Amino acid sequence: MIPHGRGTDRTTNFHAHHAPVGALATYTCGKHHHDTGAGHESGQAPPHGLFAGYRDGTGADAILNLFPFFPVKPDDLARYIGSAESAATAQAGAIPRRLFDDRELRREVGWCSERWLAGDAELAIFTPLNELPDPACAPAAAQRDAFIPATTLRFTVSNPGTRAREMLFAATYHPGWRMLNGINGLANRRGYGFATDQAEAQRFTAFSPEWEYTRAHGGAAFGGVAGFRLVVPPGQTRTMTIAVGWWHEGIVTFGKRMAYWYTRLFGSIEDVLGHALARADAVVAACAARDAELMAAKLDDEQRFLIAHSTRGYFASTQLLDDGGTPRWIVNEGEYLTLNTLDLTVDMAFFEARFQPWALRNVLDQFAAEYRYSSRVYDPAEPARLLPGGVAFTHDMGGNNTFSPDGHSVYETAGIDRGCFSYMSCEELTNWILSAGIYWRQARDAAFLAHHAALLVACQSSLLNRDHPDAAKRRGYMQCEDERCAGGGEITTYDSLDHSLGQARANGYLAGKMWACHLVLAELFAASGRDDLLPAGREAAARCAAAITASADAATGIMPSILTDPASAPIIPVIEALAYPAWMGLRKAVSPAGPYGAMVTALRRHLLAVLKPGLCLYPDGGWKLSASADNSWASKIHLCQWVAERVLDVAVDPRSHRVHADWQRTGAASAGVSDQFRSGVCHASAYYPRIVTTILWLNQGR
Amino acid sequence: MIPHGRGTDRTTNFHAHHAPVGALATYTCGKHHHDTGAGHESGQAPPHGLFAGYRDGTGADAILNLFPFFPVKPDDLARYIGSAESAATAQAGAIPRRLFDDRELRREVGWCSERWLAGDAELAIFTPLNELPDPACAPAAAQRDAFIPATTLRFTVSNPGTRAREMLFAATYHPGWRMLNGINGLANRRGYGFATDQAEAQRFTAFSPEWEYTRAHGGAAFGGVAGFRLVVPPGQTRTMTIAVGWWHEGIVTFGKRMAYWYTRLFGSIEDVLGHALARADAVVAACAARDAELMAAKLDDEQRFLIAHSTRGYFASTQLLDDGGTPRWIVNEGEYLTLNTLDLTVDMAFFEARFQPWALRNVLDQFAAEYRYSSRVYDPAEPARLLPGGVAFTHDMGGNNTFSPDGHSVYETAGIDRGCFSYMSCEELTNWILSAGIYWRQARDAAFLAHHAALLVACQSSLLNRDHPDAAKRRGYMQCEDERCAGGGEITTYDSLDHSLGQARANGYLAGKMWACHLVLAELFAASGRDDLLPAGREAAARCAAAITASADAATGIMPSILTDPASAPIIPVIEALAYPAWMGLRKAVSPAGPYGAMVTALRRHLLAVLKPGLCLYPDGGWKLSASADNSWASKIHLCQWVAERVLDVAVDPRSHRVHADWQRTGAASAGVSDQFRSGVCHASAYYPRIVTTILWLNQGR
Repeated sequence: MIPHGRGTDRTTNFHAHHAPVGALATYTCGKHHHDTGAGHESGQAPPHGLFAGYRDGTGADAILNLFPFFPVKPDDLARYIGSAESAATAQAGAIPRRLFDDRELRREVGWCSERWLAGDAELAIFTPLNELPDPACAPAAAQRDAFIPATTLRFTVSNPGTRAREMLFAATYHPGWRMLNGINGLANRRGYGFATDQAEAQRFTAFSPEWEYTRAHGGAAFGGVAGFRLVVPPGQTRTMTIAVGWWHEGIVTFGKRMAYWYTRLFGSIEDVLGHALARADAVVAACAARDAELMAAKLDDEQRFLIAHSTRGYFASTQLLDDGGTPRWIVNEGEYLTLNTLDLTVDMAFFEARFQPWALRNVLDQFAAEYRYSSRVYDPAEPARLLPGGVAFTHDMGGNNTFSPDGHSVYETAGIDRGCFSYMSCEELTNWILSAGIYWRQARDAAFLAHHAALLVACQSSLLNRDHPDAAKRRGYMQCEDERCAGGGEITTYDSLDHSLGQARANGYLAGKMWACHLVLAELFAASGRDDLLPAGREAAARCAAAITASADAATGIMPSILTDPASAPIIPVIEALAYPAWMGLRKAVSPAGPYGAMVTALRRHLLAVLKPGLCLYPDGGWKLSASADNSWASKIHLCQWVAERVLDVAVDPRSHRVHADWQRTGAASAGVSDQFRSGVCHASAYYPRIVTTILWLNQGR
Repeated sequence: MIPHGRGTDRTTNFHAHHAPVGALATYTCGKHHHDTGAGHESGQAPPHGLFAGYRDGTGADAILNLFPFFPVKPDDLARYIGSAESAATAQAGAIPRRLFDDRELRREVGWCSERWLAGDAELAIFTPLNELPDPACAPAAAQRDAFIPATTLRFTVSNPGTRAREMLFAATYHPGWRMLNGINGLANRRGYGFATDQAEAQRFTAFSPEWEYTRAHGGAAFGGVAGFRLVVPPGQTRTMTIAVGWWHEGIVTFGKRMAYWYTRLFGSIEDVLGHALARADAVVAACAARDAELMAAKLDDEQRFLIAHSTRGYFASTQLLDDGGTPRWIVNEGEYLTLNTLDLTVDMAFFEARFQPWALRNVLDQFAAEYRYSSRVYDPAEPARLLPGGVAFTHDMGGNNTFSPDGHSVYETAGIDRGCFSYMSCEELTNWILSAGIYWRQARDAAFLAHHAALLVACQSSLLNRDHPDAAKRRGYMQCEDERCAGGGEITTYDSLDHSLGQARANGYLAGKMWACHLVLAELFAASGRDDLLPAGREAAARCAAAITASADAATGIMPSILTDPASAPIIPVIEALAYPAWMGLRKAVSPAGPYGAMVTALRRHLLAVLKPGLCLYPDGGWKLSASADNSWASKIHLCQWVAERVLDVAVDPRSHRVHADWQRTGAASAGVSDQFRSGVCHASAYYPRIVTTILWLNQGR
C-alpha cells in the first residue's frame, strides 16, 4: 500500500474509483468536502455524500466525527474543520460535526484496495482484479463472482474510551428508498442499494444523518439519506462489512436494445448484495494478494500509485451488456460516455490482453461487423476527385448508452478541416489493426484470424491507399483524406491538440502507427498463410520508416511533427508506435541493428533531443507531448515512457513519475482519474479509462 | 382565450404546464430565460431549453430571432434583449440572437391551449381535456386517444419580406439522440422524442442551434440539442405540427412493480408520435371547443385563468400505471412526488368526479386494500393508556415512484408533536370518507358501496373513537391521538402552518370535516340499507355542529381555530367542510333553516368577521387562511371561496381573483403551478395539482 496523508508528503485529498466490472458504475471517494459515492452511467462524481464516522455522546453533548467525504459549502467549512462546530453557530437541534482533515487523515492506496484512517475509524474499499472469465462460455458461478455489480467496503470503529459511541454509515442519494427483506439493507429505486453483515446495525432513511437521531419511522421515510447506525460499546470495536451494489434491469441502451449482462446472473438487488456479503472475505483476501503483487514490482511508489489509480479508473468505464444472449464488452470514454472509442481501445489493449483478451476480441468483432465502412479518399491537391480508398472504422459506436447507426460514430462530423469532431478514418484503421495484433499475440486465436481474413486483406489495401492510391505517389505517411470529411481534413486521437498532433495528414505519429500496422499485418498474414501479401507490406513499412527517418533535422536530430513541414513542432509520440512490435516480441523490428534500425536510432536521437525543458518537458520534469501545445495526455505519456525505457533504452527521470502522479492527485483531484492536462491541471477527459497503459510497466518481462 | 402581454396588464413571464394524461410528464413553458421543456417524473422545470424562432439571412448577416424560452445567464441577457447582440461581443462564429420580450410578446391562455405570438412567429401548445375512459374496460382505440403520452404543438412562421428565412424548432436535452425511422423525428434514450408532419423539415442534433449551421453529420451527433429547420420562402408561411412524446417502458416503480399504462396501448415512441401527429387536427379542434366553453362561463378572466392554469397543472402530476393488467391511478403531490396523498385526493375529488370518476374510485380502492391501518388512540391526558381507535388511512402510498410497504406512508413519522411529518390519522380518515361520498354522489355505484360496506361501518366507529372512545367524553371534535404518534400529536393537511391549522386535536377545521363525514356516512348507510347506523351518526354530527357553533365569540362571532382555546387565531377553513354536503346536494344540511342552521349561521357570521385586513385578508385583498400565519394554500382558498359564495351567500370580492391569479403568474412564475404562498410568493408546493379545486367555479349549477 502506498501511504498518503499524515506523515507523508502526498495529499489524501483526491477522488479515486472503486468500480465493479462491467456495470458502468463506480464508488467514487477521496476528495474532501466534495460529491462522493455511488455513481452510475455518469462521467462525474455523483451529487451525493458519504457520512462515515461516529457519534460520541448523546443529546446536547453529542458530536459527530466524520470523514470529510460529503459536499460542504465553503461557508460551512470553517465551522467543521479542525474543531467542533460551536453550539452557538450550530443550527438549532443539529449535532455538531467534526470533520477529519489532512492533519490526522491517513490514506493507503493499493492496487485493489484503499484505506482511510482517522480518529478511531478505518474505512476500506475493495475491488478485486481478476483474469475475467469469458461471459460467452464461462460457468455461471464464475461469472457471478467476476461480474457482480457491487463493491465491498469495510468500516471499523473502536471505542477505547468510556463514553457512548455509535458508528454511522450513511449516504445522501435521491429519495425513493425502501428497506430490503431478508437482508439488512436498503435499496433505492434508482438502482442502487447497500447492505451489511452486521445484524445489529440499525438501518434508517432521513433527510440528514442528524435528523435520524430525532425521529422514528416505520419504514423508509421521506428524504434521500439512508444508512446504518451501530453501537460500539466502551472498550470494544465493531466492523461492518458493507456491500454497495447497483441494479438496473431491463433494456438500458437505445439504438440497439441491450440489458446489463449481470441481470442474467442475478435476480435482484438482494441477490447482488447477498452474494457480495457472502464473498467479502474472499474478495478482501484477493485484493490483499494483488496489493502485495504491486508492492513487490520493481517500480517506485509513484508508478505503483499510477497503476493502481488507473486500473480502478479503467473499470469505472466498463460495461458488459447482454445483446439477446450475446455478451457485448463496452468501455466508455470516461466523462464523454462514448461507446468503445477505438482510439482508446488500442491503448487499453495492453491491459485487456492481460486480464480479458476475450473482451478485446469482442470489441474488434463489433467494429468489424457493425462499425466499419468502406470509403473513397481524395488528394487534398484535387479535393473534388475521389479515388479508391478502402475499409475504415468509426471513431466509436455511439454515446450515452445510445448506439449509433451501423457504420457511423456519434463523434465524427463532416466538413471540419482538421479540428475537433472531424473524421479519424486513417487513425482508426491503424487502431483496429494494431489492436488485432495485440489480441493475436496474446491469444493465438486462429479462429479470429480466419473470421477476419478478408478484412485483414482489405485493411492492408486501405492503408496503402490512404497513403496514396497511386503507388507511384506513396510516401510512407497518410496523404489522402477520407471522402467523409466532405472537403475537411482528418484528425488523430489527439483531437484537441494543435496540428502537431491533431492533424492526421503527414503526421509522424500516424506514420509510425502505419509502419507498425504493416508489421502487425505481416504477422497475421504469415500466420494465416497469406505470404503473397508480405512483400507489399514490407515495402510499405520501409517507406514509413524511411519517411520518419528522413524527417530528422541533420544537425539536431529533431523530427517535425508534420513530416512534410520542417517548421512544425516536435512531438514525443512519433516514438509511440514502437510499442506494438515491441510488445508483440518482434525484437528485430525495434532493434537498432534490425531492418528499421535507422529509424529506431533516429527516434532515439529525437527523443533525447526533445526531452528538454522548453521542448517536450515541463520545467518540473513532467512530459509534454508536443513542444507547441500545453495539452498532454497521461495515457500516452506512460505509453511513451515504456517505449523510451524498454525499446529505446532511454532512462526516464523518476521525478517525472512523481509529477505525473501529482497531476492525478492534485491536478485532477475531483476527476477520479484523468487523461488530459494543461501544465499539470486536468482540463478535459475526466473519469478516463485510457491511462491504464500504465500496465505496461508490469509487462517488462515480455 | 385570456390575453396576456402586450396591450394587457398581465405578464407573459410565467411557466405553465402542458401535460398528457397519466404519464407523469409535462411540457413546461412560459417563464423567460428559464429552464423550459419536456420534464418527466420531476417536480421542477427541466434543466433544458426550447429554441423556437427563425433565422434571417445567412453567413455573417444572419440573426436568430427566438422566443425567450431557454435559460440565459444574467450576464448574457443584456446582449440578447431588445436588440441583436453586436458582432463585436458575439462569440466568434456565433449567430447573433435576438430574443422576443414582453414589449412584443403576446400570450393567450385557454383551458386547453396556450399561444405565444411575437415577430412573425406563433407557437401554440394543445392539451385536450376529456371525460377519460375507464382503462379497466374501455376499448383500446379510445384509450390510445385519451392516454397517449404526448403533447401537440403548432409552430408557425411567416416571411412577409424578401430575405432568406428559416424557422428553427430545437430543444436542449441530455445527449443520447437518434433519428427515428418511418417518421420525421428524433428520440432520446431518456424516453423523450418529438416528430413533425412537415416532411421538408430537416432534423439535426448538435451542441447548440448555432453549431448546427456550421456542421453536417450523417446521423445523430454528439450534443444534447435536437431539432428541426425549415425554409420559409419569401412571401410564404410554414406551420410545423410537432408532437412531443414520452416513452418509458418496463418497470418504472419500486416497492411494487408497475409499468406505465401507455405501454399497453403503444408499441414504441414512433407509435406514440405517429398517433399524436395523426390526431393533431382533432386535438386542436377539441381544445378550441374547451377554450370556448371556459370563455362562455359566467366568470371573470382571472377565474378563467386560474381554472385553465390549474387544470393543466393537475395533469402534470397524474400517473396511470399498469399493475399486472390492473390500472392504478396515481396523482403525485407536485414537487414532492408523493403518491396519492389522500389529503390532496379529497380536494381534487371534485375535479375527478367530473372528468374521471373511475380514477377516484381507483384511488379509494387502493387505500382501502393497501394503505389503511387499524390503530388504537390515547387521550393526551393519559398518553400511556391505549384505548380503542379504529381504521385510519395513510397520508400517501409512497413517493418518487416508490411504493411504501402496505399500511405505511412515506411521509408520516413517529414521535413528532404536532409538527411537519407527524401522522394525519384522523384527517385522512375524514378524507377517505368524504372522497367516497363525492364518488358515490357522482357515480351512484352500488358495487362500490357493497364492496366497502364493512369498511364504512368501521369508519364511523373510528371517527367516534377519535373524538373519544368513551361515549360520555365525546365533544364533537378530535380529542384522542393515534398510537402511531408514539407520544407526539397528529397534524392536519396544513402541515407547515402554525397550530391554528396544523394541529389536529380540537381543530375547528377538522371538526367541520368530521361533521361532514357523518352526513356522508348517513347517505352511504341509507343507500346500503344500514339505517341502524344512522342515529349514532346524527348524534355525532349534532355534537360537531354544536361544538363549532359554541366556539364563536358572542360579541364578534369569530371562532378560534382550536375550539378549546378561545385565544387561538381565527381561520377561514372552519367553513371548508360545508363544501361536501353542498356539493352532494344535501341542501338542508347547509341551510340556515336546516338541522345545522345554527352552525351555518354562525359560520357565515365568522367568515364575514374574519375577511378583513389584519385578520384573514392580505392588504391587497388576497385571502389569508389563518390570521396568525403568513402561509396560505391556493387550493383551499378557491374551495372556501366557493363555499362562501354558494353556501354562505357571502360575496367574494373579485379583486381577490386578480390577486390570486398574480400569485400564480408572478409569485410562482417558475413553479408551473403552486399551492403555498407567503404574502403572494410561492415558498413551497411547486408543480402542485391540488388547486384544481377551481373546477368548483364551473359546477355552480349543482
